[in-house]
Amino acid sequence: MEVEKLMIQSALSNWNLTINRLNKFFGALSTEDFYEPIAPSKNRIIYVLGHLAAVHDRTQEILGLTARQHPELEKPFVTNPDRAVEPIPEGKELLALWNEINTHLYNGMLTFAPIHWIGRHQAVSEDDFRKDPSRSCLSVLLNRTNHAGYHLGQLMLSGKLKS
Amino acid sequence: MEVEKLMIQSALSNWNLTINRLNKFFGALSTEDFYEPIAPSKNRIIYVLGHLAAVHDRTQEILGLTARQHPELEKPFVTNPDRAVEPIPEGKELLALWNEINTHLYNGMLTFAPIHWIGRHQAVSEDDFRKDPSRSCLSVLLNRTNHAGYHLGQLMLSGKLKS
Repeated sequence: MEVEKLMIQSALSNWNLTINRLNKFFGALSTEDFYEPIAPSKNRIIYVLGHLAAVHDRTQEILGLTARQHPELEKPFVTNPDRAVEPIPEGKELLALWNEINTHLYNGMLTFAPIHWIGRHQAVSEDDFRKDPSRSCLSVLLNRTNHAGYHLGQLMLSGKLKS
Repeated sequence: MEVEKLMIQSALSNWNLTINRLNKFFGALSTEDFYEPIAPSKNRIIYVLGHLAAVHDRTQEILGLTARQHPELEKPFVTNPDRAVEPIPEGKELLALWNEINTHLYNGMLTFAPIHWIGRHQAVSEDDFRKDPSRSCLSVLLNRTNHAGYHLGQLMLSGKLKS
């Protein structure tokens, strides 16, 4: 396999590893667990789930795959802090959205050739991209993987999943 | 620039982003702050710092750069949970080690050609690598970036740094 294809394979495999760990965490929750904070007086688990779903939904747009499918997630889970917007969808409903968004996003990413990965993403102008060619679609994938891992670390503090 | 070089640049830039955020966090701490838990009854900040330093020290070996320089970090910060091994180095001393290890690791990574990045890392056998060529040095970099981001997410919950 070519060097760049192996590199993309590593990046996608790292993405999957993090998404699978998040799925394992969310999948083990009871209906009530979603409303527990990750630590005393911190964000609730359901807010983190909604936040991740909203960010991954927007990522589809940034990678040029599709317009975001769930703009309604932005206000309660990105623009505002936890508990500021009510009502919000229930835990299991959000979990279904999260799975739907990730499946669509991942299937889209599988279609990208290496040249697309090193190309400009939709949130950077052509001028800015010329100045800094590291602002590529691949950077978005790596950055979102890290963002998901950052929140996974917080969720694991809740003690809802032991390993 | 060639496709694979741009890809490596993105991966290294993502690494730097996470390390810089961790450095900002650790650099803002008072001597006492290091001994605070990240959340009630959870690991102390100093344990997370020692853990990250130990893992990055070992990463130098796994990438084939050098034998680990600080094996003494393994017992208190990797093999055992927080508070199980005493005494441990002081916060500022660990922070100096952390900086030294990261500088050495990063300078080493800068010398790797793309072909080295997609090559086998030292913790996988030649046989296993043939079966799964995604277990490369690049995978180690991406995995360690995620690991650092995971703990950054936890540290940020301590409220010691606001942004």
